[in-house]
Amino acid sequence: MRFKTALVLSLVAVFALCSLAAAETYKFKPTRDQLWYLFGCGRPVLKVNPGDRLILWTEDANNGNTKTLQDIQTVSGLPGKVNPQTGPIYVNGAEPGDTLVLKIEDIQPAENQGWSWFEPRSGFLFSNNFHPTFGTTAPQTVWLYPVNKEKGTVTFQARNMPGFTAEIPMRPFVGTIATAPPNGECVHTSTPWWSGGNMDCVDTAIGNTIYLPVSVPGAMWSTGDVHLVQGDGEVCGTAVECRGWVTIQVLSVIKGKKIRTPRFENDEYLMSAGSARPLDSAYKIAYEDMINWLVDDYGFDWQDALTLASQVSPVRVGNVVDTNFTVVVKFPKKYLPTK
Amino acid sequence: MRFKTALVLSLVAVFALCSLAAAETYKFKPTRDQLWYLFGCGRPVLKVNPGDRLILWTEDANNGNTKTLQDIQTVSGLPGKVNPQTGPIYVNGAEPGDTLVLKIEDIQPAENQGWSWFEPRSGFLFSNNFHPTFGTTAPQTVWLYPVNKEKGTVTFQARNMPGFTAEIPMRPFVGTIATAPPNGECVHTSTPWWSGGNMDCVDTAIGNTIYLPVSVPGAMWSTGDVHLVQGDGEVCGTAVECRGWVTIQVLSVIKGKKIRTPRFENDEYLMSAGSARPLDSAYKIAYEDMINWLVDDYGFDWQDALTLASQVSPVRVGNVVDTNFTVVVKFPKKYLPTK
Amino acid sequence: MRFKTALVLSLVAVFALCSLAAAETYKFKPTRDQLWYLFGCGRPVLKVNPGDRLILWTEDANNGNTKTLQDIQTVSGLPGKVNPQTGPIYVNGAEPGDTLVLKIEDIQPAENQGWSWFEPRSGFLFSNNFHPTFGTTAPQTVWLYPVNKEKGTVTFQARNMPGFTAEIPMRPFVGTIATAPPNGECVHTSTPWWSGGNMDCVDTAIGNTIYLPVSVPGAMWSTGDVHLVQGDGEVCGTAVECRGWVTIQVLSVIKGKKIRTPRFENDEYLMSAGSARPLDSAYKIAYEDMINWLVDDYGFDWQDALTLASQVSPVRVGNVVDTNFTVVVKFPKKYLPTK
Amino acid sequence: MRFKTALVLSLVAVFALCSLAAAETYKFKPTRDQLWYLFGCGRPVLKVNPGDRLILWTEDANNGNTKTLQDIQTVSGLPGKVNPQTGPIYVNGAEPGDTLVLKIEDIQPAENQGWSWFEPRSGFLFSNNFHPTFGTTAPQTVWLYPVNKEKGTVTFQARNMPGFTAEIPMRPFVGTIATAPPNGECVHTSTPWWSGGNMDCVDTAIGNTIYLPVSVPGAMWSTGDVHLVQGDGEVCGTAVECRGWVTIQVLSVIKGKKIRTPRFENDEYLMSAGSARPLDSAYKIAYEDMINWLVDDYGFDWQDALTLASQVSPVRVGNVVDTNFTVVVKFPKKYLPTK
Repeated sequence: MRFKTALVLSLVAVFALCSLAAAETYKFKPTRDQLWYLFGCGRPVLKVNPGDRLILWTEDANNGNTKTLQDIQTVSGLPGKVNPQTGPIYVNGAEPGDTLVLKIEDIQPAENQGWSWFEPRSGFLFSNNFHPTFGTTAPQTVWLYPVNKEKGTVTFQARNMPGFTAEIPMRPFVGTIATAPPNGECVHTSTPWWSGGNMDCVDTAIGNTIYLPVSVPGAMWSTGDVHLVQGDGEVCGTAVECRGWVTIQVLSVIKGKKIRTPRFENDEYLMSAGSARPLDSAYKIAYEDMINWLVDDYGFDWQDALTLASQVSPVRVGNVVDTNFTVVVKFPKKYLPTK
Repeated sequence: MRFKTALVLSLVAVFALCSLAAAETYKFKPTRDQLWYLFGCGRPVLKVNPGDRLILWTEDANNGNTKTLQDIQTVSGLPGKVNPQTGPIYVNGAEPGDTLVLKIEDIQPAENQGWSWFEPRSGFLFSNNFHPTFGTTAPQTVWLYPVNKEKGTVTFQARNMPGFTAEIPMRPFVGTIATAPPNGECVHTSTPWWSGGNMDCVDTAIGNTIYLPVSVPGAMWSTGDVHLVQGDGEVCGTAVECRGWVTIQVLSVIKGKKIRTPRFENDEYLMSAGSARPLDSAYKIAYEDMINWLVDDYGFDWQDALTLASQVSPVRVGNVVDTNFTVVVKFPKKYLPTK
Repeated sequence: MRFKTALVLSLVAVFALCSLAAAETYKFKPTRDQLWYLFGCGRPVLKVNPGDRLILWTEDANNGNTKTLQDIQTVSGLPGKVNPQTGPIYVNGAEPGDTLVLKIEDIQPAENQGWSWFEPRSGFLFSNNFHPTFGTTAPQTVWLYPVNKEKGTVTFQARNMPGFTAEIPMRPFVGTIATAPPNGECVHTSTPWWSGGNMDCVDTAIGNTIYLPVSVPGAMWSTGDVHLVQGDGEVCGTAVECRGWVTIQVLSVIKGKKIRTPRFENDEYLMSAGSARPLDSAYKIAYEDMINWLVDDYGFDWQDALTLASQVSPVRVGNVVDTNFTVVVKFPKKYLPTK
Repeated sequence: MRFKTALVLSLVAVFALCSLAAAETYKFKPTRDQLWYLFGCGRPVLKVNPGDRLILWTEDANNGNTKTLQDIQTVSGLPGKVNPQTGPIYVNGAEPGDTLVLKIEDIQPAENQGWSWFEPRSGFLFSNNFHPTFGTTAPQTVWLYPVNKEKGTVTFQARNMPGFTAEIPMRPFVGTIATAPPNGECVHTSTPWWSGGNMDCVDTAIGNTIYLPVSVPGAMWSTGDVHLVQGDGEVCGTAVECRGWVTIQVLSVIKGKKIRTPRFENDEYLMSAGSARPLDSAYKIAYEDMINWLVDDYGFDWQDALTLASQVSPVRVGNVVDTNFTVVVKFPKKYLPTK
């Protein structure tokens, strides 16, 4: 029942042969049956080597079923089938206790429009499953955002304000990126957790390097849930959701390097991501990890690191609507010691 | 005992006469006895008119007692005497139910160095009064930051990493700004609350307009606790603290305009601030207020406002270390309807 | 404006003279003008000596205005005027740093009916000021509970279930009991805090001894907000509210004994109360205080105390609806070391 | 790798045949290889019919490795291998959307001593994985509690208070009881969740009926982690842990009855359990479920139910130390409408 991916295995076999040679580029679009709704528990749709580049088609959070203003959840949604993943992808040589290093090279919308909605029992400012209130809950409203690829924008179209639109620059990112969790757990793709997942943070974006803990052989990572743009927190419960083409290079596997929670990096920042509830807990997890990173890898004294970070580190809130909330602490690399 | 400000009253009388005429500029440096450690309950040190400009000297959070690396809290601190305020300032014509509008025009350090420290039973990542743990708590360590006014920087000087320094651009702001709270309450100046207070958010900065609810005759506002620079959250418990000179213009009193929580504005953003524990609660308060603001003053439909804000609004965390935590939601004004 | 109690001062003078002799019993019913809505900032309505016994009339949480099913908040409520206190009461000899010891000897309903209600923007399971949601909030519904003093019961009368009633044994307690807070703060009587206040916990009940920190000369304590019965958490926002007659003996002032948060005691339990948001924080404050109590006063090793308490201590939730939430940890005295 | 239970299948086949007839009693002690560390993902160790009675041996939370005061976690613990389950058990006829009804008939310690400990990065009042602090964390200390089966007590033996002991009446319960979660998730046995799990609440005890949602064919339930006694919250991180013999009757499968979160019942109370972080969230989940239960099954109006529960319902805190916290709301059955 879990092993829907049999059809792709012969394909995988071909890939596997190829990957014995130099770095390869794979273009992969999963069939509907290959979409995977768990972190962990799946069979690999691809096996790749460090150095390989992947051009991955990703389904949107609602399985491509939100195409019109009438496509509210009770019509099109499949219970539990949200945030379909492209993956899992097996990385040759990755073993528990290693760190997987991915670089997000490009994210392009694969449709001409994105969408957002309110969902029953979801949303930070609505009665939801974790903080229920008596009273009416979210109205089921859909918004559609035409994509202008040349200008690099999406256009918000008001539902209840005749004629009002707002053109918003796209800043695409993958809402979901994760390795399989440890201990045999298989976690729903709506959850962000120690191994990453549905972090919905704007920093899993083009140009950023992503470090994820490896907990099972092959790392078994996946990605999906492209957001074309999002404010901090994804407060209403959705970003501008869209199918996408995501280009990721498997930079490397750092052998024997163990990290506790996802880390990101670009030219400007080191970033640690913490996912938990409530927000305070996610904040503490991310911040502690950043201090440990500065101490372990950059020679900082912990007291100096904590004080300096407190003065110079911005903090971004990924989401406040998923099973866990996500916080990202960003330390400016210009304040790192010169080696 | 609370009425320490008698000495200034004759001065106030002179000011009051002056203010009958055109807008005035007052320069005011409180004596040590005039420093005030509550929001509410005090007697005014100044009475001013809308339009008047104030150049206020502000004491630092530890009453100017942290001058050397040895000035840890148990030596120099006065229990309960933290975050001294310059004020309260009475604004003629302000009545409960109005909104006070202040513009922060300038903030300059009044010393040649700032400081930060770890404090026992304080700090987000230490055992503290609200989340105690058994085990060692924060070491009492002080950091001093020389100020370079020409370059506009402060310099972090590591305590335990010989020779390591980091030059940080100043972005000064007032940690504390508030009107007196309603219902006769007098709240300690370590607390941010519905009427503002120790929000420690980087957006109470130069160029920003501050809206505060008026709950008592004259508004009775005060400010202090200048921070020369701070990351999001003030995680270690302190920013780069310094005495300052703060120039604020009392822009106006909006009669009959009632707001629930502080709001800020500049050319780029509308901003709502929420202060509560835990961070989730502060976040919700700020976000709800922003949606209400967009609906009430800009003609937004609430659903459209909530969805659009979710896609375009950054959120900053003020502090995660004070009696309440503070979150600021920022809506970009470029997405406001044209009227 | 704050000093409404001038009329009672001559009365106080008489009391003061009396109290020079042996322990006295005072019966006191405040006038409407004497009701006090702050912890701190008032003038004493009584001055008493340790050993004196007080029979105090207490107003109900809504100032006696809820008498019929039609008395919803917008009709009868006075903004900010909730939880009126009988007090403050000055205890001769109490100084900051002492502990005030009160014994609750009796609580009797002073009316023939109690009431509860839903209030807009209040209640744990409704959109409220600290956790707002979009959607309908609480309906404004009132329930009245006839009191049967002989049987010691109140009777719930359903509003929407014809003929359904439930007879509930009374377990009366004072929702509110506090000393004035330190640092000159004056805190609204809806708040529970380090010095006690609106804890709404079922253990401030008949037969229990209450320990409160003294932060100002005379302790300036007050009480009120009698609840005839309440479940854990006061979840809907109100208990069975009633005016009451409360008999309290001022047992003693423990000189130089400093406590951080209220403590209670009876034959069976030592109890520590913590008040904060969220519930986790209140829980930690209460539990840490209990361990410290066991260590400081009963010779426990902290590790042994923490482990043993974890196995034998029940915990009660006072309220989850006030400005702060309250948790009470109860250590069974039968497990104390014999001295 | 997940399918360790092959050896028991022939045994299961025999059981399955037997169960076609009248209710059977099975006595089952898993081998070490059969112990299961996930909710979900396993193969059944038993297949039973509604009506059958099971006498199950359960391993303790640390796999039986804590036998002396020296058996601290780093010596004996297997990473991730905590809270081993006896199960999963397949119930014939149970389908997703049903409710499984179990009755706990007996719990007996299977050893002559129980134990508790402090664990690194665990415990509500220590720096832990979700709320890390800088500073020393929990000391690794073990306590052993001799069991006196005749008296029905365990004896606390202090580590640092020479000669101090405390004899505590046993109130055994299963810390862990759950069905497999929906959506293919496999959740670590340290977690309490919508389908039950490591709730560590004192009400999964002898005489109580347990209702669990069925999310996969056969329900695939398991139990374990016997606690001989525990205070509210399991604050130090452990109860008095012990191997046990647990007698559970599979009372029935309620076809088409869907519940969201575990419910318990005995002669005195209806009980709803909520598991989430922080405690506020668990509290809301449990309380909303109780109101829904009263409305759906007992004809209550929701407003009347919420108000009445607020006056009469005790609330117990299960744990504040696991991956999620657990709260149990208890509605006294004497206040139910007579039908």
